Amino acid sequence: FLGVGYPSQSRSISVEALKPSDTFPRRHNSATPDEQTKMAESVGFDTLDSLVDATVPKSIRLKEMKFNKFDGGLTEGQMIEHMKDLASKNKVFKSFIGMGYYNTHVPPVILRNIMENPAWYTQYTPYQAEISQGRLESLLNFQTMITDLTGLPMSNASLLDEGTAAAEAMSMCNNIQKGKKKTFIIASNCHPQTIDICQTRADGFELKVVVKDLKDIDYKSGDVCGVLVQYPGTEGEVLDYGEFIKKAHANEVKVVMASDLLALTVLKPPGEFGADIVVGSAQRFGVPMGYGGPHAAFLATSQEYKRMMPGRIIGVSVDSSGKQALRMAMQTREQHIRRDKATSNICTAQALLANMAAMYAVYHGPEGLKAIAQRVHGLAGVFALGLKKLGLEVQDLGFFDTVKVKTSNAKAIADAAIKSEINLRVVDGNTITAAFDETTTLEDVDKLFKVFAGGKPVSFTAASLAPEFQNAIPSGLVRESPYLTHPIFNTYQTEHELLRYIHRLQSKDLSLCHSMIPLGSCTMKLNATTEMMPVTWPSFTDLHPFAPTEQAQGYQEMFNNLGDLLCTITGFDSFSLQPNAGAAGEYAGLMVIRAYHLSRGDHHRNVCIIPASAHGTNPASAAMVGMKIVTIGTDAKGNINIEELKKAAEKHKDNLSAFMVTYPSTHGVYEEGIDDICKIIHDNGGQVYMDGANMNAQVGLTSPGWIGADVCHLNLHKTFCIPHGGGGPGMGPIGVKKHLAPFLPSHPVVPTGGIPAPENPQPLGSISAAPWGSALILPISYTYIAMMGSQGLTDASKIAILNANYMAKRLESYYPVLFRGVNGTVAHEFIIDLRGFKNTAGIEPEDVAKRLMDYGFHGPTMSWPVAGTLMIEPTESESKAELDRFCDALISIRKEIAEVEKGNADVHNNVLKGAPHPPSLLMADAWTKPYSREYAAFPAAWLRGAKFWPTTGRVDNVYGDRNLVCTLLPASQAVEEQAAATA
Amino acid sequence: FLGVGYPSQSRSISVEALKPSDTFPRRHNSATPDEQTKMAESVGFDTLDSLVDATVPKSIRLKEMKFNKFDGGLTEGQMIEHMKDLASKNKVFKSFIGMGYYNTHVPPVILRNIMENPAWYTQYTPYQAEISQGRLESLLNFQTMITDLTGLPMSNASLLDEGTAAAEAMSMCNNIQKGKKKTFIIASNCHPQTIDICQTRADGFELKVVVKDLKDIDYKSGDVCGVLVQYPGTEGEVLDYGEFIKKAHANEVKVVMASDLLALTVLKPPGEFGADIVVGSAQRFGVPMGYGGPHAAFLATSQEYKRMMPGRIIGVSVDSSGKQALRMAMQTREQHIRRDKATSNICTAQALLANMAAMYAVYHGPEGLKAIAQRVHGLAGVFALGLKKLGLEVQDLGFFDTVKVKTSNAKAIADAAIKSEINLRVVDGNTITAAFDETTTLEDVDKLFKVFAGGKPVSFTAASLAPEFQNAIPSGLVRESPYLTHPIFNTYQTEHELLRYIHRLQSKDLSLCHSMIPLGSCTMKLNATTEMMPVTWPSFTDLHPFAPTEQAQGYQEMFNNLGDLLCTITGFDSFSLQPNAGAAGEYAGLMVIRAYHLSRGDHHRNVCIIPASAHGTNPASAAMVGMKIVTIGTDAKGNINIEELKKAAEKHKDNLSAFMVTYPSTHGVYEEGIDDICKIIHDNGGQVYMDGANMNAQVGLTSPGWIGADVCHLNLHKTFCIPHGGGGPGMGPIGVKKHLAPFLPSHPVVPTGGIPAPENPQPLGSISAAPWGSALILPISYTYIAMMGSQGLTDASKIAILNANYMAKRLESYYPVLFRGVNGTVAHEFIIDLRGFKNTAGIEPEDVAKRLMDYGFHGPTMSWPVAGTLMIEPTESESKAELDRFCDALISIRKEIAEVEKGNADVHNNVLKGAPHPPSLLMADAWTKPYSREYAAFPAAWLRGAKFWPTTGRVDNVYGDRNLVCTLLPASQAVEEQAAATA
Ligand SMILES: Cc1ncc(COP(=O)(O)O)c(C=O)c1O
Ligand SMILES: Cc1ncc(COP(=O)(O)O)c(C=O)c1O
Ligand SMILES: O=C([O-])O
Repeated sequence: FLGVGYPSQSRSISVEALKPSDTFPRRHNSATPDEQTKMAESVGFDTLDSLVDATVPKSIRLKEMKFNKFDGGLTEGQMIEHMKDLASKNKVFKSFIGMGYYNTHVPPVILRNIMENPAWYTQYTPYQAEISQGRLESLLNFQTMITDLTGLPMSNASLLDEGTAAAEAMSMCNNIQKGKKKTFIIASNCHPQTIDICQTRADGFELKVVVKDLKDIDYKSGDVCGVLVQYPGTEGEVLDYGEFIKKAHANEVKVVMASDLLALTVLKPPGEFGADIVVGSAQRFGVPMGYGGPHAAFLATSQEYKRMMPGRIIGVSVDSSGKQALRMAMQTREQHIRRDKATSNICTAQALLANMAAMYAVYHGPEGLKAIAQRVHGLAGVFALGLKKLGLEVQDLGFFDTVKVKTSNAKAIADAAIKSEINLRVVDGNTITAAFDETTTLEDVDKLFKVFAGGKPVSFTAASLAPEFQNAIPSGLVRESPYLTHPIFNTYQTEHELLRYIHRLQSKDLSLCHSMIPLGSCTMKLNATTEMMPVTWPSFTDLHPFAPTEQAQGYQEMFNNLGDLLCTITGFDSFSLQPNAGAAGEYAGLMVIRAYHLSRGDHHRNVCIIPASAHGTNPASAAMVGMKIVTIGTDAKGNINIEELKKAAEKHKDNLSAFMVTYPSTHGVYEEGIDDICKIIHDNGGQVYMDGANMNAQVGLTSPGWIGADVCHLNLHKTFCIPHGGGGPGMGPIGVKKHLAPFLPSHPVVPTGGIPAPENPQPLGSISAAPWGSALILPISYTYIAMMGSQGLTDASKIAILNANYMAKRLESYYPVLFRGVNGTVAHEFIIDLRGFKNTAGIEPEDVAKRLMDYGFHGPTMSWPVAGTLMIEPTESESKAELDRFCDALISIRKEIAEVEKGNADVHNNVLKGAPHPPSLLMADAWTKPYSREYAAFPAAWLRGAKFWPTTGRVDNVYGDRNLVCTLLPASQAVEEQAAATA
Repeated sequence: FLGVGYPSQSRSISVEALKPSDTFPRRHNSATPDEQTKMAESVGFDTLDSLVDATVPKSIRLKEMKFNKFDGGLTEGQMIEHMKDLASKNKVFKSFIGMGYYNTHVPPVILRNIMENPAWYTQYTPYQAEISQGRLESLLNFQTMITDLTGLPMSNASLLDEGTAAAEAMSMCNNIQKGKKKTFIIASNCHPQTIDICQTRADGFELKVVVKDLKDIDYKSGDVCGVLVQYPGTEGEVLDYGEFIKKAHANEVKVVMASDLLALTVLKPPGEFGADIVVGSAQRFGVPMGYGGPHAAFLATSQEYKRMMPGRIIGVSVDSSGKQALRMAMQTREQHIRRDKATSNICTAQALLANMAAMYAVYHGPEGLKAIAQRVHGLAGVFALGLKKLGLEVQDLGFFDTVKVKTSNAKAIADAAIKSEINLRVVDGNTITAAFDETTTLEDVDKLFKVFAGGKPVSFTAASLAPEFQNAIPSGLVRESPYLTHPIFNTYQTEHELLRYIHRLQSKDLSLCHSMIPLGSCTMKLNATTEMMPVTWPSFTDLHPFAPTEQAQGYQEMFNNLGDLLCTITGFDSFSLQPNAGAAGEYAGLMVIRAYHLSRGDHHRNVCIIPASAHGTNPASAAMVGMKIVTIGTDAKGNINIEELKKAAEKHKDNLSAFMVTYPSTHGVYEEGIDDICKIIHDNGGQVYMDGANMNAQVGLTSPGWIGADVCHLNLHKTFCIPHGGGGPGMGPIGVKKHLAPFLPSHPVVPTGGIPAPENPQPLGSISAAPWGSALILPISYTYIAMMGSQGLTDASKIAILNANYMAKRLESYYPVLFRGVNGTVAHEFIIDLRGFKNTAGIEPEDVAKRLMDYGFHGPTMSWPVAGTLMIEPTESESKAELDRFCDALISIRKEIAEVEKGNADVHNNVLKGAPHPPSLLMADAWTKPYSREYAAFPAAWLRGAKFWPTTGRVDNVYGDRNLVCTLLPASQAVEEQAAATA
């Protein structure tokens, strides 16, 4: 009666419309087809494609990009299913391998509120201090934790891994000794990967690395700049280095100690022995092993050498109102200032992981950490006791967490352990070590007893042995000095308190959750949730990097797929996933080139040509490889001066090793002559190294391989969606042409090399501590590529170009756009020139960047690559609405500048110079500015709806660098300063 | 040489110290043993235990609480392992069951940034509008979405589930007809659980429910108040209700339509047919099935009946500066005002899930939703086509997503499907239905073909059939009217845009991530991350509530364990996990009592005695059960007047059904006579219903069962850590003594009952749509209890008492503490009396609550249970530092009041009346207040470090209720108003 049959007027449906609808590219790429056309029209083209055709030189344009897998792109749901499938192929065995990687309980409150929280992981490096006070405080906590535990007064806020930190320390020793002593000794009790990295790295500094047993070390040659020892040793021994260090110092040899943070909660700290530099990893402080990384490494040193420390350092300063404020200290040391004088190329570090480790210490506090250490030590001790009872020979030196056992057949025991889902370290045929950690239980120890008893019944249990345990830390080495006494490490030890502390810090920091961060050369694009999800799945987090690869088949499959996809994207033949930052990739790539030349007997090829416009890491990396740098200039249009290049190449023909080039150029332009440039280099016997930082403008349109490069690194934390984490982690894999593939790095513990594997590998050594770098974050790039498919990625490149051109167009009548391509378009980023305002209004780029904060934005890249400019990179994932808002802000600021120019506003006291305006200032009873509060606070309508508030006035960098303080101020002092400030 | 042997001075270790160290109670319970003693001393006791002894009456004190499982408490790591084990026992088969529950792709950006984000899930119900504008906007989006899709102009912001929403609508029909027509007709094409709930519920209103086939419905009796039909029907048919509704209206019968949001994107909306009320579930809009809930249900109606709508309604109003601001509308309707005149007892609703659903609509927009609907419809259509080709009989009425098939052996097909990990609905021996959803794929349809072909080869595929598909929606029922046209539903459709929209709203709302929310009677305690983690694991999220229980063994094991633990905690014999809020528990508990009396032939027992101090849901629930309410007073000390009670009990001896009591009392006191009270009731033939809202003061110290209660509900969203979600979800399971256990609710689709199961069950019917209520959030309470162990929980109760007494002590010389126990202590919460300030300073509790916002705090419970007071409940998870900060704020406010009292501040224009002070006000160029900006903004030192900013001035409730607007204003209007406001 009510029923109605099929309708007369009916419609059919296409198979296409029945496919899963949770597709990803439309969520990532912002502009709809309709918007694309309108935006293209606004910059003078009929279509997006015609804009792209006019922008990317025809000579290098790809016909097509096609993937062997995932070409059509997976939907978000399909992607998660695929990742679950990979995850199921990883087997999480209990690891006792140690060697710098330990299981740890990531406190869930930190896991969820930092590691899984876009408000923490999408932040940029805290260059803009006024909108970064939260993570600056957390990183200062990290530095304080490191200085307290190591007993040395200065620390940086993270290096890439323990191995490269040791190499940085080695290079510091070389510098401290002014390069005059050319031997560096490494004790054989260091982790093998640490030794290997230093050996590889030493070459570039013309250092001779000697590996020696501790007892054989002497300094008779008089040529020793430094010595590296490990404490506790890689096989567990805890030694008293007091005399050792005295002797080294007596010989004017600097001592570097690799150490372990957890051990240092109960061991006498290296600083008290007199160590000059201490390095190590903060991984076991609540950062998952992740099959090798990312983790934060640290480097601490004395006041004397503080200005030689590599990496980023957070310091205490004051703001425009004289209140305490934090910022990155000594930025002037960064590579782009020092260039080839730089002795380190570290740029992207491990901020997110340093924050996690610092929060772990905040959560546990000194007592909690000590309890964990004592428990770990107790379990190791009970294990040692049990083994002795089983009749095995246990090393009788003091130990902390690692027990060394002699056995007739190490391999058999390790294999039996694997049957019980336990991984042990086989040192050699007769030696096994077992390293204990926070997650080890009494039951685990019982399982180990069973394994070592070879199936025979065991008459005791770990619990039954506990009362017999005797502390195995030599009495002279028991830590007596206090640490982590600052209130921050003694206040937030319930979950509520830590949750709020984390959120309080977070509320001070601008991230991609707030607004676009249009940092030229940094590609701050969407870090999609689906990409991030697998990163915290236990099957990915809980693998030890040296676990048998059979247990990591999910990872291995992903590496192979990813290698293949990256080869297609770049036009290369093989990839190494080892470098764990862009600069590490540069270094690795140049080392590959070097190895290639050496393999051909071209020992003399050591000249590297680098354009003046290159990122500072380029010359720094070349310097580290021992290359002689020849700088060439750019022409008025910002392009490489091809004539000059040609002359230089020909001049250095016999010694030419490499040419480094960023494409599109750091000026935001697709240089026309790039294929010719490559040819010139090749014709003169050189190799072309391409810096892939700007890869976001190439994917699907052209490729480094197609253009003619031989090597390239990819910043996966730019183009391929790994979030910036407030200054890291990153990944900088390198791709190479076939002739270079054999030289790709391997690893002393887990052999690896190019993916796909080349014939006849002759690897150059290792350049990161873990075989596949920061494996845990590779799912991010992998899922991005697999969900986008070739079409989605190509569209991304096009829309990135579109967005940049759209903005350039909107801004060009307010600010000169500095460089353009032959058809008047820009690439995926562009530079606006602010130099004129210096004269007309006394305004500097910094003033504009700080004023942008009042509009709710993070400033673009400032004064790089050209001083006095801003470089804007919108990326494809920013919507037209967001681009417009940013342009509106800049246009409004231009009007504010005009008011100064016209004399309506004071040159020294105007809304730009006064920026940013924090609430404390805006709501102060006294208001002495010549402009209004409301205008200072709400210069644009959208700010009324919701505004991000800078928490501090402009921070004084000069004051901070002059009065360098890089740890938390004692609470009393902070309180006093605060009181004084608010009085 | 460097080696040092074992130290001479050695130390041993206890087995205890070798146990896992990631224990939970110290992260949840705030006060350290040291602090406990100090705080106890400050309130005049030597130890915490002596304080507790003096506070909890001896007569009801438990000796010990001991669990059968988890007594010692699991560590966080062990808990996660246990939950993984349970998860692995749940089998996620593909569901085609439908019946109101569908698979859906939860957009990952919503999953991570709302469902897994404490800044969204720890918020309180938005009573304090000025610090809740974010979720108020989101809930307004929800209401707008519902009104647009249903075609009716008014919607509330969520009910508990579709079934209870239908029951609420039934009750509305009764009210609309002023209770004069006592028949309610339900069409048999409604979901069975909807029918069952309405049947159960009708009793209390003395309604006669008649279930009829649509074609048999008539209104001849003249006694029909309303009729409920479903659209599409439970078996899929899409019917034209035009004539049906005309006929009903002609007979003055109100029409309720249960409907489906996704279907309504392509079907003519009920409002256009003339339906009076529309109800349904928003589950399939991006909220996981979760084995039954939580999900947001909705109820929409016409302007005419808006003031009869149950539940919370968000409305548009203005703030003190005349700017648009949102708030909960018509709060005066809440039960605690209307009490036994209330016709609905709904209190805690489903805010978090309503927000998720609204965000899903925001993310997809009208076009996206329509595409999903068309795809789902297409897949269903292709399936129907294929089945016809296989020779099966398919219902030939129009359908949307559910296809009904006739077959000779439905059971055999369903069993075959299960072998392919597919669940179908077996309607009867010859009828199967298959419901399609967003996650269905072409491959799924092919699998279904295989199942229905009984293993015989199928000559076609879903893809091959697609071109033949004909739209199966009757042409007259194709939706033509637009929906979701507001810009909010058309702007945030890339992940970046939605991410920022979510964060922008979040930034306006105060949550437990910021500071304590000391809401008396609401127990806003820590919602720990470990508790929350399993809630979003696919093995818990992706189960259909009507899936065979064999597939849900993980859930079932958890239910059984949880039932057992709750029995131990409460001293009861059996539990029902069905009620999905506290008030639903009250209703269920009273229905159990009613069923018990009926079973004994005591049909006349219908008097319910309720103290005047009871929460408004108590009388409302009693009224819904059809009880006659007798109110008794409290004495001057706030205790139940036992004499009065005794008289009332004796007077109503013959008809006494129940007595409802909250313990400790809503006045924050452990009443001494509670055991006597229970005895009086029992002696007079009544049953004692205990409201367990204050259970946080009982666990481990006493228990409802021990005290003498017969039934009790537990608000798991209070004592047992389910976060408040900004106004829900909650869970209100009920525990009962043995004699009541047989009557616990069951379910028409999946039989259930008491846990542990009683003998001779005679269930009262069902009271929620899902057999075990909101099963997905039970892991939260389960893990809380299992990690705390009996000792941790008992300590929690003690520390909750300690914290309340500590605060009361600190505040008592500033504010009178209204009620105390015999020894001068308070329970876990206490009331401060502000009534005096009305005279001395013109200050009301609201002024204090609003001023607290300026100090960064959410106000305590206001004017309940006593007008003119604030009720403060700190919980055990707030640290002493936080308690002190809150006390400092209140003390400082007391001084501000004193300034008014002294005449130093104006009675009408002072810092309290002006509160809260949003930045827009504080930074306005014009400042006309008699107090300073700085003092308004930063009245306490800690605010300088980090401050939460209210985003709006005080919201005008009266204006809003007079000009009731409960959907988004058209953008143009909003813009105009905004412009006017900022002009
Ligand atoms: C052009 C260019 N090259 C190299 C780098 C260094 O990469 P990373 O910071 O990952 O070491 C950057 C970083 O911004 C860059 O912009
Ligand atoms: C004493 C008391 N009883 C009952 C309730 C109702 O519980 P629910 O909101 O879960 O329905 C409340 C809620 O605040 C309450 O405080
Ligand atoms: O620090 C940079 O990422 O350039």
